[in-house]
Order: sequence, then C-alpha cells, then structure tokens
Amino acid sequence: MQTLRQFQEDFHSYLLENQFKKEPKELYEPVNYILGLGGKRLRPVLVLLSHALFDDQFEQSLPAALSVEIFHNFTLLHDDIMDAAPLRRGEPTVHMKYNVNTGILSGDVMMIAAYDFLSKVENETKIPALYKTFNKVAIEVCEGQQYDMNFETRNDVTIPEYLTMIELKTSVLLAGAMQLGAIIADASVLDTEHIYQFGRHIGLAFQIQDDILDTYGNPEKFGKKVGGDIVQNKKTYLMLKALELADETQKKELDSLMTTEIENEMLKVSAVKNIFDDLNVKSFAEAIKEEYLEKAFEHLAAISVPKKKKKLLTDLANDLMMREQ
Amino acid sequence: MQTLRQFQEDFHSYLLENQFKKEPKELYEPVNYILGLGGKRLRPVLVLLSHALFDDQFEQSLPAALSVEIFHNFTLLHDDIMDAAPLRRGEPTVHMKYNVNTGILSGDVMMIAAYDFLSKVENETKIPALYKTFNKVAIEVCEGQQYDMNFETRNDVTIPEYLTMIELKTSVLLAGAMQLGAIIADASVLDTEHIYQFGRHIGLAFQIQDDILDTYGNPEKFGKKVGGDIVQNKKTYLMLKALELADETQKKELDSLMTTEIENEMLKVSAVKNIFDDLNVKSFAEAIKEEYLEKAFEHLAAISVPKKKKKLLTDLANDLMMREQ
Repeated sequence: MQTLRQFQEDFHSYLLENQFKKEPKELYEPVNYILGLGGKRLRPVLVLLSHALFDDQFEQSLPAALSVEIFHNFTLLHDDIMDAAPLRRGEPTVHMKYNVNTGILSGDVMMIAAYDFLSKVENETKIPALYKTFNKVAIEVCEGQQYDMNFETRNDVTIPEYLTMIELKTSVLLAGAMQLGAIIADASVLDTEHIYQFGRHIGLAFQIQDDILDTYGNPEKFGKKVGGDIVQNKKTYLMLKALELADETQKKELDSLMTTEIENEMLKVSAVKNIFDDLNVKSFAEAIKEEYLEKAFEHLAAISVPKKKKKLLTDLANDLMMREQ
Repeated sequence: MQTLRQFQEDFHSYLLENQFKKEPKELYEPVNYILGLGGKRLRPVLVLLSHALFDDQFEQSLPAALSVEIFHNFTLLHDDIMDAAPLRRGEPTVHMKYNVNTGILSGDVMMIAAYDFLSKVENETKIPALYKTFNKVAIEVCEGQQYDMNFETRNDVTIPEYLTMIELKTSVLLAGAMQLGAIIADASVLDTEHIYQFGRHIGLAFQIQDDILDTYGNPEKFGKKVGGDIVQNKKTYLMLKALELADETQKKELDSLMTTEIENEMLKVSAVKNIFDDLNVKSFAEAIKEEYLEKAFEHLAAISVPKKKKKLLTDLANDLMMREQ
C-alpha cells in the first residue's frame, strides 16, 4: 500500500511531466509559475486517495488530479487579482510578477486546461459523468467567491449564509475531487455519494479550522500572519458568532473596531480577541468543527470497502485538523 | 426547409428560455446583460446550420449553439477588460457598468456555463468528442488573444504570424462551431473535417474583410468608427502588407505616423490611407480574402450531401462577404 507521501510524489512527478511548454510563452509561463509555487497539493491527492479506496489503479486518476489542481490554482490566480493580493505562498502573485491582463488570460487558459486534462482520462465512458461533476463544482466555486465578495459590503451576514458560502467556495472542490476519483475507479453510486459527503464535511471542518487558526494559531507555525482576518474585518465564523452572542456594549465595540481606521493593528487584534474570549466563540467554532468532522467520518465508515483501506484518509483528515496547533 | 431567419429565431428563443435566474444575482446579472446585447448570433447559427446540413433534427444542437455563444461572449467580456474598452455594441461594457472584479468572475462563470451547456446535448456518446473539440478551440482562442496582445508591442510582426493569430483568435471558433454541429448530427469524419475547414476559411476571409472595412468601409453602414485600426496603430493585414511593400520613404512615414502622438485623428487616417492606396494594399487584401473564400467553398462542395442542402451556408457566406460595402 502506498503512503501519503508516495501519492504526493506520484502527483508531483505527473505535474512536472505535464508542464506547459507550448507557445506563446507569455501565456504559459505564468501557468507554470503558479503551479510551481507548491502548496500541499491536497486536492489532487484527494482524487488519488479516493480512487485508491475503490481500486488499485489510481494512476488512471492522475489526469483528473492535475485537472483539479490546475482549476484550484486558476481560482487562486483570479482571486488574487480581485483581492489585489501582492503575495501568494510568499512569492509575488501572477498579476504582480507579470501584469493584470496576463493574470486574467493565463487564468482563463488554466481553466480550459483543467477541462482538457479531464478529457485525458483513459476510460471514455466515464467522461460525461466527470464533466458533469466538474461543471457543477466549478460553477459553485464561482458562486461561493461572489458570495464572499458580497459579504465584504454587507453587515447582516448570518451564520447559515456564511456556512453556505464556505461550502461553495471551499468544500465542494474537496468533495468534487473525491467524487472524480470515485467515478474513475468505478465506485457504486452510493459509495460515490458517501465519499463526496466525506470530502464536503472535511472541507467545512477545514475552513472553520482555518478561521480558528487565523486568530488563535501559533504565529511560528501558521503560514499567514495571525490576526489577518481581524485586521481585514473578515466575517469569519468567529466574528459572526461573536456578533450573534454580543450584548449591546460588545456589539457597539465590535462595530466600531470594524469600521474605524486603526493604525496599530496589534491593538485592534487584541481588542477583538478579548471580546471573542469573553464570548467564548473559539469553543463554539471548535464544536461545529467537531460536528463536521464526525459527519465526515460517518460517511467514510458507510463506504463499502474494508476498514484498513480507509486508514490513509482517516490519517489525512486527522493530520489536517491537527496542523499548526 | 428553415430559412436563416428561422434558425436565428429558434436560437433566440432558446437563449431567452435559458436566461440565468440563479443566485447570487451579482454574478449572473452581468451574464444576462452581455448575452442580451445582441449581435449577429453568427456562431450559434453556424452550429445549427452545420447540424441541419447532415440531419434534420437540428434542435438537438441548440445546447451546443448556446454553449458557443456563451463562450464567445465570455471572450468579449474578458477582452474588453484587457483592452479597457468602454463600449460593446454601443452599450457600456460589463466592467464599466458593474466593475472589473465582477467582469472577471462573471466571465469565469460564463466559461464554465459554456461547458455546462455542452453537457446538455442529449446523445451522451457524443460528449467526449464535443468536449475534445471545445477544449482545443477554447485553448486556441486564448493563444490567439495572447499573440494579439504580443503584437501591440512588437514591430517585426510578419504576415504569416498575423494570419496565424487571426486563425486562432477568430477562425477556429467559427470552425469549431460547425464541427460541434456536425458531431451531434453524426456526420462522417471526412465531412466533419470539410465543414471544419469551411468554417475556418470563412473565418479567415471574414477577418480580412473586417480589416478592409475598418479602413475602406462605408461610414454610414460600418458598425464601428472607420479608421479605428489606423488610429490605434493596429497591425492589420493592410498595415503589414503596406510595411512589406513600402519603399524607404514610405516606411519611414508609416513608422513616424504610428509612433507620433497625432492630435487630429482624421489627418492621421488619411495620411496612412494615402500610403495604403499608393501601394494598392486593398487589392492584395481582397485577393487573399477571395482565396480563402474559394477554399471555403471547395470544402463545402466536397461534403457528401445534396447541393441544395448547402444553399443556406453558401448564402450566409456570401452575405457575410457583402456586408457593409
């Protein structure tokens, strides 16, 4: 049985073999650049792990894995333009290193390339189902991004709306990645649904975890600046829960912290964090995360393959939840 | 037999039935907006005409026709951002009416929607071939757009390079539209290739025609401002041919007309046009256009269906070439 590490390495080799060497180089260089910035390669590995759960020939899912990774990086590229983000994984974003037009067009060609790799899956009878899954996921990711942008200017976002947004923006791609692997491995309809739901719930837990880490993570281990969400007035689960639980005074204080220009970021972070602590929002977030995790494992347990086959996915999910704490 | 007008109306009804009514409206409103701006609907009608050439049930190709129209409008939307164009068909462009971020994201979801409509084609066994065609075309359109952008800052563009660029940016989508219709209609491989080549050569002739009209069109009939290409120093077929044929003096004059800021646009247009006329570049352009048209009709003639079935396509091609002159 392959280790997680080996799956990652197999994917990495496939990625390197499939670098874009075509002309015009102005179009394809930025594609190789962003794909080369690294990252956990979580989504493509999920495609492979899902395939391997049902069938040993997981290499058949390598094109779909690359498709998912290219699509994910396309969303990062265009999101970075929309957010005017200067850095991605510590390196200049594509629109900073090249320019905005290059970022738009290279992103476009990445999305098409993602579809193109899906066509390279050997078993042609699977292709209509793969495209159907991919289309649904891709549309939902765009909808999630739009909701996220809408939330920036709204001050009446509810927790259910937030959960819908992170489901669309983050979870469905993880879920869809697993569904693609299951389809190629010829899993049953029921098992395919369970692995989709496993991915979906892991994705939700993962995003809530991200919200927690952004405020409560270990600054030395967390990849981004701790407190960044607070500085940017992001409507995270923590913030929305705090606004829900706050009394009049706390609500006023949070509102004014979010609407006043505050020069000293550290003071702002610690003021907001104090309210979070008073209201105990971290433990609410942890509770909902655990709930999602439990549901994820219920779906994994329901899949009709021997338990030992599920070990890698269980380990990966636990690893994800333990990271940086 | 349907008239051209009827095909257009059938497509228009299908487009209206399939307006995007989903949430979030911020994402889908701009999609309906740009799709509602009109235009000739040339590409979707080509899908239907191609289908009808081989098989009467052309309605089966309506989803593919809409797919092509959505894709075409996605390219217009993102191109307008890249060109900072204020107007499209006389109305504000999406990024002007809404904003750039909306333009990027709504364009992204349009590309996915284009793929999604392709999945709605009834005969599932055709889907892998449809996606393969679509992917190839979509990638080539992006490459064409990149070459077009590269040409803006280059002053050594050759005519063969220009012809490759317009083939990628314009012709392959017309060709691909016809290929999709032929695939759905279950045309033979050979006939599918001929109809692709018909569309490709019509597309090339169409673009050369566009270059000619931009400089020599009737200002009252031509949709855009006559002389716009000259004002923008576009490396059109006319300009590249002029640079190829010019003597030292003429070349110097053209170069300085293209690199000097000239306040009076009309003077610039007439100065460049004088050189074009001296060098007779219009007749060179007309000759190459005729060559493409001839090749297009050769491919149409080679298709194994009765001649009378080809009448609509012949009429459409002739109409396109007669427009605005």
